[in-house]
Amino acid sequence: MFDKEYDVIVVGAGHAGCEAAAAAANMGSKVLLVTMNLQNIAQMSCNPAMGGIAKGQIVREIDALGGYSGIISDKSAIQFKMLNKSKGPAMWSPRTQNDRMVFAEEWRLALENTPNVDFYQEMVSGLLVENNRAVGVTTSLGIKIKSKSVVLTNGTFLNGLIHIGDKNFGGGRAGERAATGITEQLLGLAFDSGRMKTGTPPRVDGRSLDYSKMILQPGDAIPEKFSYSPTKALEHQRDCHMTHTSELVHDLLREGFDRSPMFNGRIKSLGPRYCPSIEDKINRFADKNSHQLFVEPEGWRTVEVYVNGFSTSLPEDVQFKALRSVVGFENVKFFRPGYAIEYDYFPPTQLKHTLETKLVSNLYFAGQINGTTGYEEAASQGLMAGINAHQKINEKEDFILKRDEAYIGVLIDDLITKGTEEPYRMFTSRAEYRTLLRQDNADLRLTPRGYEIGLAREDRLRRMEDKLEKSEKFMQFFKDTSVLPDQINPIFESVNSAVVDQSFKMFKAFSRPNVTMDHMMSIDTVAKFVTENNLNREVLEQAEVQVKYSGYIAKEKTNADKLHRLENVKIPANFDYTKLKSLSTEARQKLTKIQPVSISQASRISGVSPSDISVLLVFLGR
Amino acid sequence: MFDKEYDVIVVGAGHAGCEAAAAAANMGSKVLLVTMNLQNIAQMSCNPAMGGIAKGQIVREIDALGGYSGIISDKSAIQFKMLNKSKGPAMWSPRTQNDRMVFAEEWRLALENTPNVDFYQEMVSGLLVENNRAVGVTTSLGIKIKSKSVVLTNGTFLNGLIHIGDKNFGGGRAGERAATGITEQLLGLAFDSGRMKTGTPPRVDGRSLDYSKMILQPGDAIPEKFSYSPTKALEHQRDCHMTHTSELVHDLLREGFDRSPMFNGRIKSLGPRYCPSIEDKINRFADKNSHQLFVEPEGWRTVEVYVNGFSTSLPEDVQFKALRSVVGFENVKFFRPGYAIEYDYFPPTQLKHTLETKLVSNLYFAGQINGTTGYEEAASQGLMAGINAHQKINEKEDFILKRDEAYIGVLIDDLITKGTEEPYRMFTSRAEYRTLLRQDNADLRLTPRGYEIGLAREDRLRRMEDKLEKSEKFMQFFKDTSVLPDQINPIFESVNSAVVDQSFKMFKAFSRPNVTMDHMMSIDTVAKFVTENNLNREVLEQAEVQVKYSGYIAKEKTNADKLHRLENVKIPANFDYTKLKSLSTEARQKLTKIQPVSISQASRISGVSPSDISVLLVFLGR
Ligand SMILES: Cc1cc2nc3c(=O)[nH]c(=O)nc-3n(C[C@H](O)[C@H](O)[C@H](O)COP(=O)(O)OP(=O)(O)OC[C@H]3O[C@@H](n4cnc5c(N)ncnc54)[C@H](O)[C@@H]3O)c2cc1C
Ligand SMILES: Cc1cc2nc3c(=O)[nH]c(=O)nc-3n(C[C@H](O)[C@H](O)[C@H](O)COP(=O)(O)OP(=O)(O)OC[C@H]3O[C@@H](n4cnc5c(N)ncnc54)[C@H](O)[C@@H]3O)c2cc1C
Repeated sequence: MFDKEYDVIVVGAGHAGCEAAAAAANMGSKVLLVTMNLQNIAQMSCNPAMGGIAKGQIVREIDALGGYSGIISDKSAIQFKMLNKSKGPAMWSPRTQNDRMVFAEEWRLALENTPNVDFYQEMVSGLLVENNRAVGVTTSLGIKIKSKSVVLTNGTFLNGLIHIGDKNFGGGRAGERAATGITEQLLGLAFDSGRMKTGTPPRVDGRSLDYSKMILQPGDAIPEKFSYSPTKALEHQRDCHMTHTSELVHDLLREGFDRSPMFNGRIKSLGPRYCPSIEDKINRFADKNSHQLFVEPEGWRTVEVYVNGFSTSLPEDVQFKALRSVVGFENVKFFRPGYAIEYDYFPPTQLKHTLETKLVSNLYFAGQINGTTGYEEAASQGLMAGINAHQKINEKEDFILKRDEAYIGVLIDDLITKGTEEPYRMFTSRAEYRTLLRQDNADLRLTPRGYEIGLAREDRLRRMEDKLEKSEKFMQFFKDTSVLPDQINPIFESVNSAVVDQSFKMFKAFSRPNVTMDHMMSIDTVAKFVTENNLNREVLEQAEVQVKYSGYIAKEKTNADKLHRLENVKIPANFDYTKLKSLSTEARQKLTKIQPVSISQASRISGVSPSDISVLLVFLGR
Repeated sequence: MFDKEYDVIVVGAGHAGCEAAAAAANMGSKVLLVTMNLQNIAQMSCNPAMGGIAKGQIVREIDALGGYSGIISDKSAIQFKMLNKSKGPAMWSPRTQNDRMVFAEEWRLALENTPNVDFYQEMVSGLLVENNRAVGVTTSLGIKIKSKSVVLTNGTFLNGLIHIGDKNFGGGRAGERAATGITEQLLGLAFDSGRMKTGTPPRVDGRSLDYSKMILQPGDAIPEKFSYSPTKALEHQRDCHMTHTSELVHDLLREGFDRSPMFNGRIKSLGPRYCPSIEDKINRFADKNSHQLFVEPEGWRTVEVYVNGFSTSLPEDVQFKALRSVVGFENVKFFRPGYAIEYDYFPPTQLKHTLETKLVSNLYFAGQINGTTGYEEAASQGLMAGINAHQKINEKEDFILKRDEAYIGVLIDDLITKGTEEPYRMFTSRAEYRTLLRQDNADLRLTPRGYEIGLAREDRLRRMEDKLEKSEKFMQFFKDTSVLPDQINPIFESVNSAVVDQSFKMFKAFSRPNVTMDHMMSIDTVAKFVTENNLNREVLEQAEVQVKYSGYIAKEKTNADKLHRLENVKIPANFDYTKLKSLSTEARQKLTKIQPVSISQASRISGVSPSDISVLLVFLGR
């Protein structure tokens, strides 16, 4: 039935699979996207939201490279918030609430409008492997489909097992089947696999809630958006609400602990530490007598509501009784209870930086299958796997983002270097160079790279160049222009900053704490420059960040350069660490397993100490 | 978790379940709709279309009574056609192509906006039965939910088994799980069950088709709509296309016959005779060397396409090879192959006219579970079951439609009286009084009845009364008014009808063959009457039908009245037929099994002869 050989077969149409298919196809590969149910493409399995702290940066990075997640999120958004606006710009994180149905529909239509993507609905049950190279897949109907490379993005479906209280049953997601066959085959090919778990809260009927008792959580007054492309910002938004648990709620939940699969040992795998279930929170923070809950609508028109913060796998009667004691939830009706799911993952230390597996060439893993959690983490891996699959079969260079280039770089380097024992999610704290990796400059960082490999289109590059040119010109203007004491002192006074008695460089003035672009704009010459040069909000923001954080940015750049030097010290492939007797035993084992490509990567492996690094450097003649 | 008792629990949110929930709720019952996946409500499992011959009449009847299918079909339509426009008005049948996703979404939102409907996502695995009365359901999580009545609408899910070539696997629909437990329990309660099968064609990628080689099938130039309520008619439409199979295609299909589950005995159950698979058609009509295929888009924006006429469960490689030889399909790409599904049904002779089961009171069956096929058949049964569940628990009268009142009446009477061994679908030929049961007068026939039971709202009734009053007035005008030879003779001449030489009654003129409303409107006085009385298209159509078919209509009314007389001869409940020795043995057995409520129903049981009826009439003292 599939007589031609595809360039790339992507297995699974979740966030990872969709980005992988789109990326490879847009670069020119012939792609087949195989998924279990074409009706359920790009489902948000858990909360109806994209972005947030560190994750919002990832969405912007995906967009800057030419991926779709940012555009789809904008098209399906019902609320926008820039989180952490009160902190430094490195922390600003865009987040949208999304219409779950529109999100899925827009993804489906976007992929249908991507000429090189073909679709096929079925379960993939195995891989075709020849000489340790992936050459296609087989399906549950026994169909063989040939390809030059395969990207696996099975999410939570591999031998998925759903838990609610003391019951459990197979499934990849509530109401959907689990997938079988792939893990078993990969184990036969000498891969390691493990089990992880994640959970989701109940969905409830918004008509049964009393919002008047909750705290309103509106979107930003001036909503921004994810994509650097000309998507539209929201004109109307839907509100969210906030409420909280209480001692009573906790007591009611505790009544079910003996029937909890988490506590009675039925679930053995680890769940996401930073997205814990409510029972976990009660258990771990026994002194806290209240936890916040965010009540999030699932779309523009639906009454279904997501109870963010109440993820649980307690028995459904316990979930219900406890939730009914939450303020505003006195008459709550359930659409479905929360549940936990256990699934197979493959420790990602088995991957290269390109997300290709070390054991089987032209086979890529992306998304939850690598032990991560979160749509954004999944989508970004999918994008990178799709890109690298395309590059490899066209004998082009690996596409790798460095740790100082992108959160995506940090994510993948962490995964393949350190592995993960519990679901990995991104945080700003994981990035050493987070002042460089801001949400406002993902285009400046990555669009040229996306363009270079043929993914980001020319109009993206032009828009980014225009923004760069204008913001640099504006910076230069601040550096070149002075301001008179008369003009600047009122501003300084208003922010309790020392006044000056002679003409003063604008750049220096602007650099002072609490002096903002709004202040600067009140100076005639600045306002005039802005109008004459037709500078938009993005350019102003960029210039403001560049001026006010120039010190930090410069410092991090210097640090990053040091890192690059270590990165340039390459370690040969299949390096034999046993001959280096002075390495610690742990270092020898870990280095042998991970096979880092550079001294820099070696230094990030846990258990490899600075003295081990010195041994390596000496041996490599540095 | 469900502490309160519901009035009605509806199991399954297909076409039957959705109408059942809406009807009972709108009449005032507290309803819980339980379904396996709330993401997949109101799926069109097969073709993305509503209505068609006899089915279009059913949709209008549902709408006239106050159901939702007509409104949802209008909202999600992408093309409208009035089929059989060249035949008499009894045959006119509205049909829409629909956007599959929008259809499901609008159903979901309509139900969410129905105040008395609660939702719950889970598999129902059994019924709660006390003293032969349904008092609730149990779910796969072991939750017990109490209710005063239960409507089962499990569709093709009960022990569903999907077949493609020589492979088969459990499932309720492609990509969805089967449901278990219910059949087993009902068998224990002494119900009979059987197996049926149905099939669906492959879905293909519209981008891979060459439409220039096919015949365009546009919608009607002036599209109408289903609902009598003020939904909007389409402003733009999407085209369909037509192509056909050939000897080559048939030969290619025949190559797979030995691996066909239909022919090698693996599928034993009967499929829909009038919606046969392509292999069935080739087999049964061996002399036909071509069959038509309709190429139907699945929505406004998707590229997915439905290949109407190519339903098949042959091996997927055979499907593919054969379809590629169809004109325009030379480069076809599959989204998924066609398949057949076998499922449990319950012979509907086990039901009363209200769709309540004879064995367990307050338990109703509706839809495919009763051995029918088709969305419209399912939806109308759901509506009737929902209405009757509400009536029963409120100790109100049974709501039964007679055979001369509605196709829905014919459908249900056929099912419970004759049963069905193969998937039952509606045809105009099944209705004895089809001149009465037209698509144009479903509101006149049924809205008063829907209003009476509190389902159709007052505005519906008012609109219908207005239409009735105006069309009657218009009829009266034709009866009262004469036309001069000068005015009418040119019209008569244009349709080759004998001219007249004196003033002539308009009614008689209009009654003549080929004289249309357009002709009549060319007469000044008629045009003036229309304008002055503000008569719309619907009223004109109604008056035209009433005038031109008055003879037929009167005759059918007389026949129907005769039927009513027989219907009024009631047979007492649990009548003991063994004491009537002169009945034929077959009649005695069948009458005992079916327990007809009237002589009229008895006469429709196959195997009950006119002489058996005489015996009964004599015994009942008539
Ligand atoms: C219950 C639940 C709770 C979650 N909770 C959280 C949370 O608290 N916080 C958080 O950040 N994230 C959470 N997530 C995770 C988030 O949904 C995932 O990280 C993200 O969706 C992963 O994307 P993915 O593309 O890797 O896989 P998925 O989105 O799971 O998509 C996998 C796709 O692959 C398809 N597929 C799988 N196997 C096969 C096969 N063999 N053949 C064909 N198709 C196949 C599936 O049909 C599906 O389309 C949760 C997920 C679930 C299910
Ligand atoms: C493969 C296929 C081919 C078909 N071909 C044709 C055709 O050629 N012509 C034609 O006219 N019709 C065809 N149909 C039939 C048409 O789809 C059905 O007649 C119609 O959908 C029946 O509606 P329903 O409401 O009875 O059931 P369905 O639409 O099947 O809906 C059943 C609902 O019940 C839910 N459910 C089932 N069991 C449980 C449970 N235990 N607990 C909770 N929820 C449950 C399911 O999730 C689903 O939502 C086909 C259907 C299928 C699947």
